[in-house]
Amino acid sequence: MSGHDGTSAGPPADDQEGGRRRDGAEEARTLVSSVTVGYLATVGEDGDPWCSLVVYGPDPHGNPVLLVSTMAEHGRNLAADPRASLAVNDPSAPGDPLDRPRITLAGRASQPEGEAAEAALDAHVAAIPGARLYAGWDDFSLWILEVERVRWVGGFARMDTVSPEEYRAAEPDPTQPIAAKAVEHLNKSHTDGLLAIARELAGARGAVSAVCTGIDRYGIDLSCTGAGQSAAARVAFDEPLTAAADVRPATVELAQRARALSAGG
Amino acid sequence: MSGHDGTSAGPPADDQEGGRRRDGAEEARTLVSSVTVGYLATVGEDGDPWCSLVVYGPDPHGNPVLLVSTMAEHGRNLAADPRASLAVNDPSAPGDPLDRPRITLAGRASQPEGEAAEAALDAHVAAIPGARLYAGWDDFSLWILEVERVRWVGGFARMDTVSPEEYRAAEPDPTQPIAAKAVEHLNKSHTDGLLAIARELAGARGAVSAVCTGIDRYGIDLSCTGAGQSAAARVAFDEPLTAAADVRPATVELAQRARALSAGG
Repeated sequence: MSGHDGTSAGPPADDQEGGRRRDGAEEARTLVSSVTVGYLATVGEDGDPWCSLVVYGPDPHGNPVLLVSTMAEHGRNLAADPRASLAVNDPSAPGDPLDRPRITLAGRASQPEGEAAEAALDAHVAAIPGARLYAGWDDFSLWILEVERVRWVGGFARMDTVSPEEYRAAEPDPTQPIAAKAVEHLNKSHTDGLLAIARELAGARGAVSAVCTGIDRYGIDLSCTGAGQSAAARVAFDEPLTAAADVRPATVELAQRARALSAGG
Repeated sequence: MSGHDGTSAGPPADDQEGGRRRDGAEEARTLVSSVTVGYLATVGEDGDPWCSLVVYGPDPHGNPVLLVSTMAEHGRNLAADPRASLAVNDPSAPGDPLDRPRITLAGRASQPEGEAAEAALDAHVAAIPGARLYAGWDDFSLWILEVERVRWVGGFARMDTVSPEEYRAAEPDPTQPIAAKAVEHLNKSHTDGLLAIARELAGARGAVSAVCTGIDRYGIDLSCTGAGQSAAARVAFDEPLTAAADVRPATVELAQRARALSAGG
């Protein structure tokens, strides 16, 4: 048992029934790539901590790129002390904020120069298109937060400390940008296919209905109902998906496989 | 002209046409009272800043009351160094996050004892009802962040540094909890009344339509359209409102006054 932010839970299981899930490093990279607003802790005069809202875009290693004004307190703080920590959560997740996925990255901010500055600006502008306007202003500077520590919290009792190496090496889930819409579409227009998947591929033989509760690059999560009871189930895709466009054919393939088994049984 | 977080703008004007507006201290107290989730910057080992999500409830002076576990990094940090900073924004505000009202409070956290602890727990639980459950657990402690610095940003080029005395003395706007619904109701069901208010009380004689864009304890904001042009206007209530329930009679009074002038003219 753990509290709001306890430490008893391990990383997501890789070997559970229904196959692989994103590990903590992948969850962290996926969350950082799917949000553009965070809160930055910097060190003020006398070492006082200061917390303020920033927008960012991650570079290809998951390091947040900021464009900040020296007129802002955090801009002056970074110029005097490069240590910083960025917290990001998923504001679109429903329910209790303490049960929402969130992450804290900590490290040192540095100002890239030359080609590195151009690449960093591109990374920032990819996430914050309007920022191109500010980039040329005298009081604005680009900063890259080089991630040295990563703390991921998946919700109550689901959390992981991720090494900076694991964080850098992990990929953001390419299906994340369309996952919520895909879940909605499946539940609206493919209830028969979901039920076949639940019965034939998830082992929920007695299910009378199945609702998709999540999609990621490794598989889909279902909530299966039958005989007045509900149970969670997971079904893996044949292979991890490598693009958002793979979600549709991969879910069609699951439904076809389930129907073939059903017809054959 | 100022940038993302520039310093050129003063506090909201008190003497503009259409009457008083909430000043920076009232905006700050209103925002802190209307949100329960924030980000806390604390000081970690070696003085490194650490940023993490917390939930809070304000005490009667606007000091955030936290209930944190020593298992959480920020809980351990506070126990070792009481300096902290809490950033809060209004996630319900639409549009660019950099144009959203937000606030940073900074100060020192202390652990209340005896009756002060009971009052602090009540303040926390009033905002976070589920917290009563955790309050008794061994690893959870109550902390009050005693506000020593306040920085309010109303959006692009609208910001104010509020003294801790002004912050403590200010009142949260009692109409805030129902303001958004009242605006929606007026625009849906009282378009004639809004138009009369715009023409007779806001001086927008040529208006052919008027939309309410905001309500606070001091008055209402309108967007008036006529001859293909739109202009913002503000109309003050007779007296500052002291309760959310005052919004309805106060807006009815404005509409009646406007109609009487219209009939008399």
